[in-house]
Amino acid sequence: MLERFKVPKKDEVRVSHESLHEVIKAVFLKMGTSESDAVEAADVLTMTDLRGVETHGVSNMLRAYVDQYTSGQVNPKPDWKIERETPGTAVINADRGLGVVLGRRFMDIAIEKAKVVGFGVVTVNNSGHLGAVGHFSMYAAKQDLVGMCATAAGTGVLPTFGAEPRFGTNPISIAAPANNEAALLFDAATSQIAGNKFTLARRIGSDLLPGWIADAEGNPVMEETPPPDGDRGYGHLLPLGGTRENGSHKGYGFLMMVDILAGMLSGSVPGMFDSEYFESAYKHYFAAYNIEAFTDVAEFKSNMDQMLRTLRETKPAPGHDRVIYPGLAEYEEEQDRRANGVPLHTEVMGWFKGLEDEMGVPALTRI
Amino acid sequence: MLERFKVPKKDEVRVSHESLHEVIKAVFLKMGTSESDAVEAADVLTMTDLRGVETHGVSNMLRAYVDQYTSGQVNPKPDWKIERETPGTAVINADRGLGVVLGRRFMDIAIEKAKVVGFGVVTVNNSGHLGAVGHFSMYAAKQDLVGMCATAAGTGVLPTFGAEPRFGTNPISIAAPANNEAALLFDAATSQIAGNKFTLARRIGSDLLPGWIADAEGNPVMEETPPPDGDRGYGHLLPLGGTRENGSHKGYGFLMMVDILAGMLSGSVPGMFDSEYFESAYKHYFAAYNIEAFTDVAEFKSNMDQMLRTLRETKPAPGHDRVIYPGLAEYEEEQDRRANGVPLHTEVMGWFKGLEDEMGVPALTRI
Repeated sequence: MLERFKVPKKDEVRVSHESLHEVIKAVFLKMGTSESDAVEAADVLTMTDLRGVETHGVSNMLRAYVDQYTSGQVNPKPDWKIERETPGTAVINADRGLGVVLGRRFMDIAIEKAKVVGFGVVTVNNSGHLGAVGHFSMYAAKQDLVGMCATAAGTGVLPTFGAEPRFGTNPISIAAPANNEAALLFDAATSQIAGNKFTLARRIGSDLLPGWIADAEGNPVMEETPPPDGDRGYGHLLPLGGTRENGSHKGYGFLMMVDILAGMLSGSVPGMFDSEYFESAYKHYFAAYNIEAFTDVAEFKSNMDQMLRTLRETKPAPGHDRVIYPGLAEYEEEQDRRANGVPLHTEVMGWFKGLEDEMGVPALTRI
Repeated sequence: MLERFKVPKKDEVRVSHESLHEVIKAVFLKMGTSESDAVEAADVLTMTDLRGVETHGVSNMLRAYVDQYTSGQVNPKPDWKIERETPGTAVINADRGLGVVLGRRFMDIAIEKAKVVGFGVVTVNNSGHLGAVGHFSMYAAKQDLVGMCATAAGTGVLPTFGAEPRFGTNPISIAAPANNEAALLFDAATSQIAGNKFTLARRIGSDLLPGWIADAEGNPVMEETPPPDGDRGYGHLLPLGGTRENGSHKGYGFLMMVDILAGMLSGSVPGMFDSEYFESAYKHYFAAYNIEAFTDVAEFKSNMDQMLRTLRETKPAPGHDRVIYPGLAEYEEEQDRRANGVPLHTEVMGWFKGLEDEMGVPALTRI
């Protein structure tokens, strides 16, 4: 994550990840979920903050989930059902359950299918927010499969040359296991930045960089600019690439790829026709490739090691200390945060204090 | 395609697509392929030029294929074999056959599997160049499946912050059918531009745009610049996004995604360890999603129509006539070129004349 999105040292409070897990679990229980669902959600959110993926950790998402449970928009006791099924595929209606809570179970179904027919794919409609899609890809990779996960919802991103938003930020991820190197874990919005980066930037007072958003008429803004007004600063995001000359038509294609894989193949309408951004209209895609259906698992992992090490040892361009690969910085962050705590902004600590007073959930343990 | 890559009107000769097909077929027969393989190759290359995908049509690729057959690098009579197979997956050793010739048959296997278990994936090792990956995705879409295709090979693209190339241009594609609108067809290198764009730019005398390539030290070149020297101008390409601030870490992730799906899941080593770029080391990924395993096919296509029409009718940003979607310009180009011929550069016409004299293949029919 670029420095401009990180919590400034002066505003940072470090809390233990065990205590963060305990508090998240308590919050979900207060929202009416089962014990096991509360643990699932705490696992996902704690790991996301441990990896440093602050866009999708507690600071932005936990309070969104509390609001959504409180307003009745998401269902704390979802009775999810498989609507269609073949040996390699399943389509699930999540009964307005949060993806954060149910996602691991959906990836489990994909993995079971992959073990039988080589590849498994599960698409999900009528769900809530999934959290960081990379979490579920990584869950498959930890079991020696290649995992992919994507999610589609809402309309905040412009098509190339367009003045009206037509896509969600539609993130996609892939994870693959290695032996000695940290696993590959790629997880990215197919827009220039994730929608939640607006929230981080506002909290910290950072500007957005050139080519990330467009103005109200659809012109790419080519200088640094504060995040625009509005609930989420959403609606003016440009596709990955930014401008046509710089490849935004490719980001546009990836946005559509996710809208099809997660959205339309889950039997949903395209995101642009969702009536409202938060109307429980998240759609998800979980896929698992059983490596041994394709090649020798030991050889695959040894090749991964060799590839990841070679990337790490690639000569850097001037001004850079080293080359990293997707997942390496997150792995290193996890080691640091397990030892030294998860940094939260004082503003976020204030919100947790409010929860403590209102709901009687435990206090976070500072480190 | 940006104007800077198109054949300038003054250098353009229009030939009939039927005659182009006939000449390509004759060239492949001269190279020693079977009649049916020659027709396959002519189908792929002619359709690619009809769609205006000039990077991967005859002007760049046919002469590369002739060179590769002549040097013995690719095999005109490949005895390809399935190495591993499950109900949903197959891994194929292509016996150094060109993907252009064999690709449709590999997608057929993926489609057959998708009809049984909902999804089919075929990975291919030890193959030659595949042509435009979108061609094979579209082949599946024409049969009412969602098709995906990708190919990995060689090392011409830098990782973010790196000074040494580690990836091929690793294109990926998806196609999905509609009823009344031209199908969605997204096909893009996951580098800033396709390697063959260097060849087009050199032929036409165009410069490259800022953020597409790096200099010899790995610094992104942020002004317009002529294509660098070297056989393919290859080795300094930046990932999609260009710079880290503009999202190149995401392009880097997509490069790796393709290296894993097409490369490592075909039992191959990562592209960065291929001994030489053209060493018959292309690896491919073909995937087909059986739409009816996921949702109602008629409803899916009707939703596609609604999405594609809405994109087409999206209010454009100032300075743009309209919003297009991936596949629309290619569809329109196809209609135009079927009627008015395929534009070839005079330099390319000269090469065809040489073939006519050397090999006795028919002359192209001008329009």
